[in-house]
Amino acid sequence: MVVSKQALSQATIKRIPVYYRTVKDLQQTGEKRVRSDRLSKLVHIAPATIRRDFSNFGDLGRSGYGYSVDLLAQVFGELLEVHSEEQMALVGCGNLGRALLTNNFRRNPDLSITMGFDTDPQLIGTTIAGVPIYDLAALSEKLRPSMHTAIVCVPSSAQAAVVRQLEAQNVTAILTFAPKPVPAKPTTTIRYIDLTSELQALLFVDHQKQVKRVSQG
Amino acid sequence: MVVSKQALSQATIKRIPVYYRTVKDLQQTGEKRVRSDRLSKLVHIAPATIRRDFSNFGDLGRSGYGYSVDLLAQVFGELLEVHSEEQMALVGCGNLGRALLTNNFRRNPDLSITMGFDTDPQLIGTTIAGVPIYDLAALSEKLRPSMHTAIVCVPSSAQAAVVRQLEAQNVTAILTFAPKPVPAKPTTTIRYIDLTSELQALLFVDHQKQVKRVSQG
Repeated sequence: MVVSKQALSQATIKRIPVYYRTVKDLQQTGEKRVRSDRLSKLVHIAPATIRRDFSNFGDLGRSGYGYSVDLLAQVFGELLEVHSEEQMALVGCGNLGRALLTNNFRRNPDLSITMGFDTDPQLIGTTIAGVPIYDLAALSEKLRPSMHTAIVCVPSSAQAAVVRQLEAQNVTAILTFAPKPVPAKPTTTIRYIDLTSELQALLFVDHQKQVKRVSQG
Repeated sequence: MVVSKQALSQATIKRIPVYYRTVKDLQQTGEKRVRSDRLSKLVHIAPATIRRDFSNFGDLGRSGYGYSVDLLAQVFGELLEVHSEEQMALVGCGNLGRALLTNNFRRNPDLSITMGFDTDPQLIGTTIAGVPIYDLAALSEKLRPSMHTAIVCVPSSAQAAVVRQLEAQNVTAILTFAPKPVPAKPTTTIRYIDLTSELQALLFVDHQKQVKRVSQG
């Protein structure tokens, strides 16, 4: 199997987990081949985009005959390294943090939040959905050296300080719901989930669609 | 001002709210001009991507001299139509729904969830963060005809039925946290927030970065 080492675009990287999940679903229903037009309907991504993305990964099947479902699952699985278990810390255990702890990425058994941190004395020392909540001030003691991933659900005003604290403990991967970009080391990867922007983008696309509909009368 | 009517790419559309927010921040600090390299550092998007995106919107400033902050704010504001207030319904008021109700898009005063729906008798008839929660079975009575946007926080298994119910009430824009695509009318726009995929994509990028770091010794 040839997996190109060339840098993938951010957009392609974001689609890989979507492809992976869908291909795993197909695998479970016993399908052996899938064509880009079929896959397009399942993942809601244009067939040309799918073919372009897949071309990064060498020969995954014959044109017109479809891609090998097993090979796709193997390639994307290796790319995403879902075989390695990832234990994560959550910083900020308010409403959103609580929702994440309760769900705790159940869809992927290799991903789990195993400890939470907060500054609220009411939360420190408790457990939420079985996960212990520690004092954020004790991060350096409690965080295991093997943990390099954190999810951050703190107010925007607290985010820069929390990122610095996490970096001091060698956390390199941070998923955050405070959308304002903060300074970080070049070796740190921060992924911002911006729900307001997602909503605005949705309304924008919807508006364009409705205008087109009205103008087509 | 010229705003091209050509179809924008999904990737560009998603970046517009990010640009908008940053440009509004610059406006508030009194800045008049911003260059793509400076903006790039603020939004964490490559300068070439910014210039390509902005080229969709006609003449926004002179090369080398920077873009007009006021003009950018105006163009993106009009595109996003943030002037029109959007009242939204929330379906599914469990942990995640509760987190959204409590935050309720405070960053943008034009966006607000004004009613919630659930099937849990313990929740029906209560209010969360001042928002009334109704029985999902009463959706057709309670949803105002002017509301065409909904946020869905229900389990994946319930999602297809909820989307059908919302479509029956002429809801056309749906933001959902159940990432499995469901059938929808062509006139409906669904935006899926997939936290597991976001996390996997983050870990993938982080892993690539750490491998590169180690191999560079």
